[in-house]
Amino acid sequence: MFVTLEGPEGSGKTTLCVRLERMLVNKGYEVFCVREPGGTVIGQQVRDILLDQDNTSMLPETEFMLFSASRAQLVREVVVPRLESGAIVLCDRFLDSSLAYQGYGHRLDVGVLEKISSFVTSGVTADLTVLLDISPEQGLRRRQQDPETWNRLDAYAIDFHERVRKGFLCLAENNPNIWKVVDASQSEDEIFTTVSAMLLNELSKRGI
Amino acid sequence: MFVTLEGPEGSGKTTLCVRLERMLVNKGYEVFCVREPGGTVIGQQVRDILLDQDNTSMLPETEFMLFSASRAQLVREVVVPRLESGAIVLCDRFLDSSLAYQGYGHRLDVGVLEKISSFVTSGVTADLTVLLDISPEQGLRRRQQDPETWNRLDAYAIDFHERVRKGFLCLAENNPNIWKVVDASQSEDEIFTTVSAMLLNELSKRGI
Repeated sequence: MFVTLEGPEGSGKTTLCVRLERMLVNKGYEVFCVREPGGTVIGQQVRDILLDQDNTSMLPETEFMLFSASRAQLVREVVVPRLESGAIVLCDRFLDSSLAYQGYGHRLDVGVLEKISSFVTSGVTADLTVLLDISPEQGLRRRQQDPETWNRLDAYAIDFHERVRKGFLCLAENNPNIWKVVDASQSEDEIFTTVSAMLLNELSKRGI
Repeated sequence: MFVTLEGPEGSGKTTLCVRLERMLVNKGYEVFCVREPGGTVIGQQVRDILLDQDNTSMLPETEFMLFSASRAQLVREVVVPRLESGAIVLCDRFLDSSLAYQGYGHRLDVGVLEKISSFVTSGVTADLTVLLDISPEQGLRRRQQDPETWNRLDAYAIDFHERVRKGFLCLAENNPNIWKVVDASQSEDEIFTTVSAMLLNELSKRGI
């Protein structure tokens, strides 16, 4: 089972991913947790370019291609082999982040990005996508509390982050069988409880 | 006018590019010479990942996306603005290298790569493409004389380089109005004389 966590900056995906992994491992599942961009040695090198605050001249098309490069490597090197071995793969961001950020945020053609992404991922898609929805103001306020991890994408204007949020909600609305929207203005514990229940429910529905 | 130089490793593109630039500047043309991957600050960072000999796990799709990222940045940051200002842009490799290397060499679907490339380049194509054709044996022998610049792509097996060469010849055959094939087993001076004549002829045909 392939589970992706999506949402704006500061929505709590990374913290949630760690807690979900621990919960599933405790229940005896084999779990593998990865993040985008990154998750492989080459993907980590790409991540460094993408998040470097000095790369202010980076254009939206370049940004999309770099995320896609990291994703192409991650899917083939990690996601597919782990899924084939029967593990649950939890992914902190996946291709929907590109649709939301470079598509809705930067206004690149979402249809074109989807077509390119299907080449990048060889058609691998999530079985369950959890959207941690939060307003950009609240999300970025959380991010600012951790200046160490503040990056080039966080620094985009607030209206960019508004479009990203709307993009995520739009993607969720278009595919309600896969997407589950969670109010991420709640506490970490509340979010964890809600998403754990969703995830265990999906696993039991599939007899996993 | 946008001129691209293509060809296998060790075919002499880089040396030729420098000499052509000097010749054109001496004749009073405004010329701008760039290379792929690279040619911008971000492109140079991508180049470092692509050519790093330690990145042996890099997959063909990742390779294609990284070349595309460097190209997307180069086209918008350098090529288009320079062409619009009336300069001649000489490019040491362009999208046809991706078709030859990742398409014919790694056997990714050339039609799909072409479609993605037209998004990457916003449809910017060369007015003249010079193919420096040489056998892989001869080309790689030349490259081996310069161990400092020997890179991850040079190290692919010989049959990979054979497919790349055939790919370039196939692309040239399919578009003879744009492509000119030059025998790159000749001396540097001979190649330079041949290509200079071609280039000046094209410029005069266009009244430039």
